[in-house]
Amino acid sequence: MQEIIRELLEPNDTKIVLCVLDGLGGLPLDGKTELEAASTPNLDELSRRGACGLHMPVARGITPGSGPSHLGLFGYDPFRYEIGRGVLEALGLGIELSPSEVAIRGNFATLKYKGAKPIIADRRGGRIATEENKRIAGRIREKIRSIDGVKVSITSGMEHRFALVFTFPEPLPSGADDITDTDPQKEGKAPLKPTPRRKEAERVAHIAERFIEIATEIIKDEKAANYLLLRGFSVYPNLPQFSQAYGLKAATTAAYPMYRGVAKLLGMDVLEVQDASTRSGVETLKRHFKEYDFFYFHVKKTDSYGEDGNYWGKVKVIEEFDSFVPEILNLKPDVLVVTGDHSTPAVLKSHSWHPVPFLLHSPYTRGGGSLGFSEKECLKGELGIFRATDAMPLILSHAKRLQKFGA
Amino acid sequence: MQEIIRELLEPNDTKIVLCVLDGLGGLPLDGKTELEAASTPNLDELSRRGACGLHMPVARGITPGSGPSHLGLFGYDPFRYEIGRGVLEALGLGIELSPSEVAIRGNFATLKYKGAKPIIADRRGGRIATEENKRIAGRIREKIRSIDGVKVSITSGMEHRFALVFTFPEPLPSGADDITDTDPQKEGKAPLKPTPRRKEAERVAHIAERFIEIATEIIKDEKAANYLLLRGFSVYPNLPQFSQAYGLKAATTAAYPMYRGVAKLLGMDVLEVQDASTRSGVETLKRHFKEYDFFYFHVKKTDSYGEDGNYWGKVKVIEEFDSFVPEILNLKPDVLVVTGDHSTPAVLKSHSWHPVPFLLHSPYTRGGGSLGFSEKECLKGELGIFRATDAMPLILSHAKRLQKFGA
Repeated sequence: MQEIIRELLEPNDTKIVLCVLDGLGGLPLDGKTELEAASTPNLDELSRRGACGLHMPVARGITPGSGPSHLGLFGYDPFRYEIGRGVLEALGLGIELSPSEVAIRGNFATLKYKGAKPIIADRRGGRIATEENKRIAGRIREKIRSIDGVKVSITSGMEHRFALVFTFPEPLPSGADDITDTDPQKEGKAPLKPTPRRKEAERVAHIAERFIEIATEIIKDEKAANYLLLRGFSVYPNLPQFSQAYGLKAATTAAYPMYRGVAKLLGMDVLEVQDASTRSGVETLKRHFKEYDFFYFHVKKTDSYGEDGNYWGKVKVIEEFDSFVPEILNLKPDVLVVTGDHSTPAVLKSHSWHPVPFLLHSPYTRGGGSLGFSEKECLKGELGIFRATDAMPLILSHAKRLQKFGA
Repeated sequence: MQEIIRELLEPNDTKIVLCVLDGLGGLPLDGKTELEAASTPNLDELSRRGACGLHMPVARGITPGSGPSHLGLFGYDPFRYEIGRGVLEALGLGIELSPSEVAIRGNFATLKYKGAKPIIADRRGGRIATEENKRIAGRIREKIRSIDGVKVSITSGMEHRFALVFTFPEPLPSGADDITDTDPQKEGKAPLKPTPRRKEAERVAHIAERFIEIATEIIKDEKAANYLLLRGFSVYPNLPQFSQAYGLKAATTAAYPMYRGVAKLLGMDVLEVQDASTRSGVETLKRHFKEYDFFYFHVKKTDSYGEDGNYWGKVKVIEEFDSFVPEILNLKPDVLVVTGDHSTPAVLKSHSWHPVPFLLHSPYTRGGGSLGFSEKECLKGELGIFRATDAMPLILSHAKRLQKFGA
């Protein structure tokens, strides 16, 4: 589909704002979803005039992670393109990556001996405090700068988590990250060796093995976190750039590192924002509105509260976003879309498979189907239920940026 | 899908009428689409009893040309099958083609010299009058009958447009039309040479190059139209025939050459019609009703008025069609479908990407969802939003012409 779209692109100076309220879709608590409970007069009004529907981030019944759900919404088939878990973890910690780097998710863990056999007693190193993590990672960082000419850097995350990046002197061949996890997944089992699944991955696997040997020697005297497990070996993904794929000069107002990182992977400009508030995102949008064709506006807290099971917290974030809709409309975008990347119902405290409300505002919609902005009302809208990868073609056509297909 | 359908075909003597109101789908003007503004008591009544939905001619967000949109509705995947631009142009001028012919779209143009360099000063030859076009094309026709044993015929279109057909003594190999356009697309640039993109196209490209040399020598003294540009080289497409694909003896009442041409490409019989009026189409339908299983009934003016931005003109054509519905029903077709090939909203003055209302009348529908025949009401119907290529399976099943799949 992206190839067909590319053939049909027609440049113009229309402006597009795509607002992603992370984890927007919900489930009822006492009969109402978060979106139904929220008072959203501005979004309701837009829904009555605009084109509404629901998108499936990946496929019916599939709960997406943040990587696939964002890729899908941006028109990159999540079955074809992938952002590796190590890369996502690194992006989330604000690490910038290049094509000669391998990123890996790490856990501090507790190793014990059962007779002579080493076993993992706790895969999460007793869920050590983040401060403890920083201290222990610091010990490793101090001693390991590089291994066999490959730069090594470890960055602490929350609790027992960290990101590990190997920087090679040369770009890596395709398949260099095809390496098995060392996490045995069950406590009481021996840690595994990082094993290359093909020839191209041998060099990276060797560095990883050496890293585990040296690092665990350094931290062997730690009580809880005397070992480490590595997962999700991955290289910088080779994604078609947004500007090439859609002819759009794009930027994001996202504040959280992971979303800024995903935007960067697609070649979007990452704008400075004061903080993660919606107010701050809107200010940034206003400041740069003239400079770009496409804005990816991201609200994180809808998802965070969903994950926490904080139903009313999520309702409040939706209501706050609604209050900024008039300011966004004042900029007169040609196409304004409000949707989520996936559903995160507070009652589930996790991402879910449920389709996500989608509202498209433009002069070229039929409107009149939906009476407000909610899961149920979007179902009555003119767009129906569609795959997230159809969102960009819809957005581009409403922005009059696509020529007709065939004569 | 067509292969699966073919396996399931079950002959019977049911009759199907597919009415295509070209460009039927619309957008609101003062709150109502053309279809909503039109008074259509007969179609409304059918909608309440029948199966309604909306079809996407090609894919979500994609605006189709007439070729892909008709192919889709007839069940031929527009991403797989293509009617070339030259072939469509020739069909539109009433030219019949065979597999040993190449059809090309031509423009008369104005060539000037910038120093020694020839440049295209006007890609449309000053938009000369159709009469002028005929005179100039006549000059070429008189002098060029054939080139290297290949018959050459030029046929004037409107204003600066013409169709050029090369008739080879032998059927052409696949890929023989894979030749670049000579139109530089921008004025002030030099015209391009027709260049074969592969070996099989060399012979046709050579004839085209010779044609340009000889023809421009003939018309070099013309003021505005002293040059010509060639685009859309294409051979007769190899489409599965309708009778083979669906076991249907099919005919069309279409009056406009392009639609008669498309029907012919699919192996339908092209019936004589007195003129392009709906009345005349209905008379033809009545006259031949006993002879065929399937009728493709085409109304052109909905699209023409849409393209002109004539909202009320389009409304009137819809109302006129509605008034003939009782006469069509009197013929007792087993399946009657009323739809469009794509949307042509008068407010856009062009084809658009919006889904197209679809109404299927048969004894075997659930009904009861839609309160009338419009974009909004069709959304409530039992068929939902579906790809146009699903229309033929739906039509065949309601005509009881498909066996069950599997045991």
